[in-house]
Amino acid sequence: MTADVLLSSDLRGIESHGFARFVEFYVNRARQGLLNLSPNVRVVEDAPSAATIDGDNALGFVPSTIAMRLAIDKARATGIGMVTVRTSSHYGPASPYALMALDQGMIGISMTTGGNSVVPPGGAKRVYGLNALSFAAPCRPPEAPFVLDMATSVIAAGKIEIAQRRGKEIPEGWGLDTEGLPLSTPEQYYAGGAILPLGGDVLHGAWKGFGLGIMVDVLTGVLSGGRASAELERRYANHFFGAMRIDAFTSIESFYDQMDSMKQTLRASPRLPGAGPLTFAGEPEAALEAEYRRNGIPYHPSVTDGLRQMCSELGIEYDL
Amino acid sequence: MTADVLLSSDLRGIESHGFARFVEFYVNRARQGLLNLSPNVRVVEDAPSAATIDGDNALGFVPSTIAMRLAIDKARATGIGMVTVRTSSHYGPASPYALMALDQGMIGISMTTGGNSVVPPGGAKRVYGLNALSFAAPCRPPEAPFVLDMATSVIAAGKIEIAQRRGKEIPEGWGLDTEGLPLSTPEQYYAGGAILPLGGDVLHGAWKGFGLGIMVDVLTGVLSGGRASAELERRYANHFFGAMRIDAFTSIESFYDQMDSMKQTLRASPRLPGAGPLTFAGEPEAALEAEYRRNGIPYHPSVTDGLRQMCSELGIEYDL
Repeated sequence: MTADVLLSSDLRGIESHGFARFVEFYVNRARQGLLNLSPNVRVVEDAPSAATIDGDNALGFVPSTIAMRLAIDKARATGIGMVTVRTSSHYGPASPYALMALDQGMIGISMTTGGNSVVPPGGAKRVYGLNALSFAAPCRPPEAPFVLDMATSVIAAGKIEIAQRRGKEIPEGWGLDTEGLPLSTPEQYYAGGAILPLGGDVLHGAWKGFGLGIMVDVLTGVLSGGRASAELERRYANHFFGAMRIDAFTSIESFYDQMDSMKQTLRASPRLPGAGPLTFAGEPEAALEAEYRRNGIPYHPSVTDGLRQMCSELGIEYDL
Repeated sequence: MTADVLLSSDLRGIESHGFARFVEFYVNRARQGLLNLSPNVRVVEDAPSAATIDGDNALGFVPSTIAMRLAIDKARATGIGMVTVRTSSHYGPASPYALMALDQGMIGISMTTGGNSVVPPGGAKRVYGLNALSFAAPCRPPEAPFVLDMATSVIAAGKIEIAQRRGKEIPEGWGLDTEGLPLSTPEQYYAGGAILPLGGDVLHGAWKGFGLGIMVDVLTGVLSGGRASAELERRYANHFFGAMRIDAFTSIESFYDQMDSMKQTLRASPRLPGAGPLTFAGEPEAALEAEYRRNGIPYHPSVTDGLRQMCSELGIEYDL
């Protein structure tokens, strides 16, 4: 399950959430005793369309995959399945789970709490999670599926890592330093700075980004009984998964027709000079996946070196 | 049904979507023949947890109330109910429908397409809807329920009306004029200008706001068979409603405890100088509702005058 999700991430070019973090983020956490490697992942509440799963502090991929499969099974039976997961851990990127619904003729939803790096409007300090959500809807091939995968903050933390690698300053409107002043360097963030909610300031919708972050906290943490991000120990994460069977609402052919037609209409709308064609969420990732499936994933040598060294330390044969 | 929704809006201080618009927005549209006043509102697809309703071009409050009641019934039976509505019309504010779920021990969801005033990232012209969503979760009284009610654009159109009434300029980052330049006056907006997606520019998350807007279009328009906002005639609107029974996931007491606890933890977090206490979505509205239920709703005389004149024109007794 872990390999499937990380590979799905790398295949779609979401490098920050694929095997690049496998050793540091998952293997080392397990070696530090922060994960339960013999978890009893179990359904603790069950209704025809709804369930709660306790992850028993497993590696997040496992309860998450089980939960998304359960949501899909429930949607097959009733039209909708929604499953919330408590006491899990980091589950990688949000979209691979949502994508699991698509070839079942369903819409997929995936949400998770993230690290507590976000500051509410008017706040001076990071206090709640980089909560993320994904919403995926199928389209008729060759049209790429619509796959939204977003943090509810102005940026995901990965954008600050990229700025650091490139030696760049942080643009105004991304975050606050520990003094509550605008964040200007990646170092200020790593010293305890905060990221702003989507919208940034109150004049541009920060209450909306904050509200969306709390919505994710309600569905993942409060509804599961796992507690909201602001009250969650860093080793844990909570998630939420949904599947909606399209033909419970409309014919799949009508759905495809209207997705296509919506995209064509918006693509044909006037663009600003130099803006290039309009793309939809999921299209850049689908193009990368097509290329990587032909030519392989171009892993940076540091990723494969890290895997090789881990294998050597753990006495596992390296066979890639 | 119409009176209930408009009154719910006014009681919570959402004046822009209450009786202030009743005559102009609803009665006059009906008199112009843009609404079907003898609609056959009907369920066209039905599954245990899902349904699609055709609104038959009714006044939007009617199919919307029927749809939210159906979602609640389905959630009572299976844990979840999700109902999409096509060929409806303007349904007022999003939150009154979501709020209908709360005293049933449920989370409520409501979404709608809005007028086509939003420009996608890199676009030069308004082309898709001021699509809105509401997410409401109950709290243990006297704690106010969490009620997010937001457009997926930087601002709702009402903010431009307010700027116009006050003779103010438009802040940078809200929209574009018809030349694709930053919107600076309300008049430029009414001449065909556009509002930007939540996030504003690409550096601050405009792709997320655009993606959320398309998500609402998929759930309201494409999933119902009613077409996405960019392809919708102005007289129509599509909606989506959801209800999630909390005790299908966790005990209602645990849910209340963890909602309270989350709010307390966030309220106790450090604030910037002069920022005032942190509020959650729904709290200012709940405070107004408590006041208005004691003292009445302070309608502007233009609202009551408009109702009186309408009654006189239509030969209806005015009795307020």
